[in-house]
Amino acid sequence: METLLLNQDAVDENTQMPELIRAIEDAFAAYATGDAQMPAKSYIDLPQYNGDFRSMPAYLDADDWDAAGIKWVNVHPDNPEEFDLPTVMGTMVYSDPETAFPLAIMDGTELTMKRTGAAAAVATDYLAVENATSMGLIGAGVQSYTQLEAISEIRPIEEVVISDLNEEAVADFIDYFDDEFDVRAGSISEAASCDVLSTVTPVESPIVSAENLGEHTHVNAMGADAEGKHELADEILLDAKLVIDDHAQTTHSGEINVPYNEGVLSDNDIHGDIGDIVVGDLSGRTEDDGVTVFDSTGLAIQDVAAAHVVYEHANENDNGYPFDLLGVQ
Amino acid sequence: METLLLNQDAVDENTQMPELIRAIEDAFAAYATGDAQMPAKSYIDLPQYNGDFRSMPAYLDADDWDAAGIKWVNVHPDNPEEFDLPTVMGTMVYSDPETAFPLAIMDGTELTMKRTGAAAAVATDYLAVENATSMGLIGAGVQSYTQLEAISEIRPIEEVVISDLNEEAVADFIDYFDDEFDVRAGSISEAASCDVLSTVTPVESPIVSAENLGEHTHVNAMGADAEGKHELADEILLDAKLVIDDHAQTTHSGEINVPYNEGVLSDNDIHGDIGDIVVGDLSGRTEDDGVTVFDSTGLAIQDVAAAHVVYEHANENDNGYPFDLLGVQ
Repeated sequence: METLLLNQDAVDENTQMPELIRAIEDAFAAYATGDAQMPAKSYIDLPQYNGDFRSMPAYLDADDWDAAGIKWVNVHPDNPEEFDLPTVMGTMVYSDPETAFPLAIMDGTELTMKRTGAAAAVATDYLAVENATSMGLIGAGVQSYTQLEAISEIRPIEEVVISDLNEEAVADFIDYFDDEFDVRAGSISEAASCDVLSTVTPVESPIVSAENLGEHTHVNAMGADAEGKHELADEILLDAKLVIDDHAQTTHSGEINVPYNEGVLSDNDIHGDIGDIVVGDLSGRTEDDGVTVFDSTGLAIQDVAAAHVVYEHANENDNGYPFDLLGVQ
Repeated sequence: METLLLNQDAVDENTQMPELIRAIEDAFAAYATGDAQMPAKSYIDLPQYNGDFRSMPAYLDADDWDAAGIKWVNVHPDNPEEFDLPTVMGTMVYSDPETAFPLAIMDGTELTMKRTGAAAAVATDYLAVENATSMGLIGAGVQSYTQLEAISEIRPIEEVVISDLNEEAVADFIDYFDDEFDVRAGSISEAASCDVLSTVTPVESPIVSAENLGEHTHVNAMGADAEGKHELADEILLDAKLVIDDHAQTTHSGEINVPYNEGVLSDNDIHGDIGDIVVGDLSGRTEDDGVTVFDSTGLAIQDVAAAHVVYEHANENDNGYPFDLLGVQ
């Protein structure tokens, strides 16, 4: 029996974004209804290398499919400069829940970018104004691409403003999307006044103020992934309809971790989990809402759901490299 | 940059048992001195498939090498009958701690058998009589092979008694080792009276009594891997010099879990951890000792240490299948 190996290109080619967005929506729903298992991320801290490893196992049972797997991922900030390697690399093992056979092993880095874009799209679908035609991006790194790719699937985005201090990254982004959108470089405030804003920076001091935002902007706060990081001014979080992906993760290392742990922001300021909105237990955007914020930390169930979509598509289309890893049957 | 894929045969061929035993000894030492990180195993329970997944991440720093990785492994007891698949399958991702690049992905099933044999050999080295020439095995399944392979590296084993109700398994075992040892089928009591005994069965009621054992037998109790399982009568455990691999794991699911949780056996009955013996903080066998027992549950650091040995050997010898999984550099 063979395990399908799916490298970066294969993960990219076999991700059907509309299908992925639905799968991520299913995953949030399964989590809300108790049909998912997601043990807490466990960390191995290696201060001697200024890095860490994280293991993210999960299982989820959507209505007509289920999936299990684990992502083994790291954060080594010195990698780009010292080793010409990415800060974050991921390896995903995707397993058949019924027998536990590893159906596929895939590049978890590409997978993470795709599922992160798809998560923002799900939140945007429930929280942005219906006729959102403009989108701002703050941060022109790798994550910005899948934000636009995914969100433009669920809103009629025409105008795009990309904001980053790195002019080369901005130029690359514009080049990449120029044919599809009316895309231009802009200031933080120009990006933040769009109908939808995704922030994908690693900053530790907020760079977006309340005045920067439009009256009805929906913000996907994607950047914060560790204690001490946040991109949005406290005032935004306190005034917005604030939606999170997971209480434990967001209060530990998400956008809200700093004000939450300083006591500036409390559970009363959180509208609820995206999963509860998906299943209809909580409202998404209503007519009375102004700014909405989605604080996304990234859940292991998203990786498993994304791996399911990629594997199924690759398998149906004979993509990838079958390899007899375990020597069974 | 390529990740080395090592299938079952490659793991087998690249495991140098003497080197593996030393690496496992290093791992136990690193754990004892606080130079290892081993987050608790996390479980995903799937009662609907009568199975579970376990994730076992670890890092260890031995004197002249360090290693990191994760084993993703399952227990699905219905697999053999329903799907013609093994009950337990493992996938190991072995990573460079400095950059986190996944150096190798390997068959974790074969790896588990090898490192389990090597762990028993380390314990046997410290706890069995020096001139141990006879070895008994109770249980002729897959784990029994590496017990003999590993233990015969550190003691001059000549005579082997294999005991199992499954006559075909016994015949296979004898066939396999007939050229190397004086090996014969025998009763539980014949196996248990040898100088060294390894028990590798999944029983839930003890099958070895105190009378079965020789006066100075060293027992490797390898079989118990879940609550409710045990192979040795309580009396043996209470009277022996009792050594464990890890307190949390052995009291939860090792040989001692049943008497420990019934209050029959307490911490006072445990001599200590194998790691503390390896580093010299605790005694191994002394002249006064009779029966000794090693309760092995299997630690994530063993998998990482074993993966290190396999990868280094495979890499030096151009074995395995290099694959560009992540598309970096």
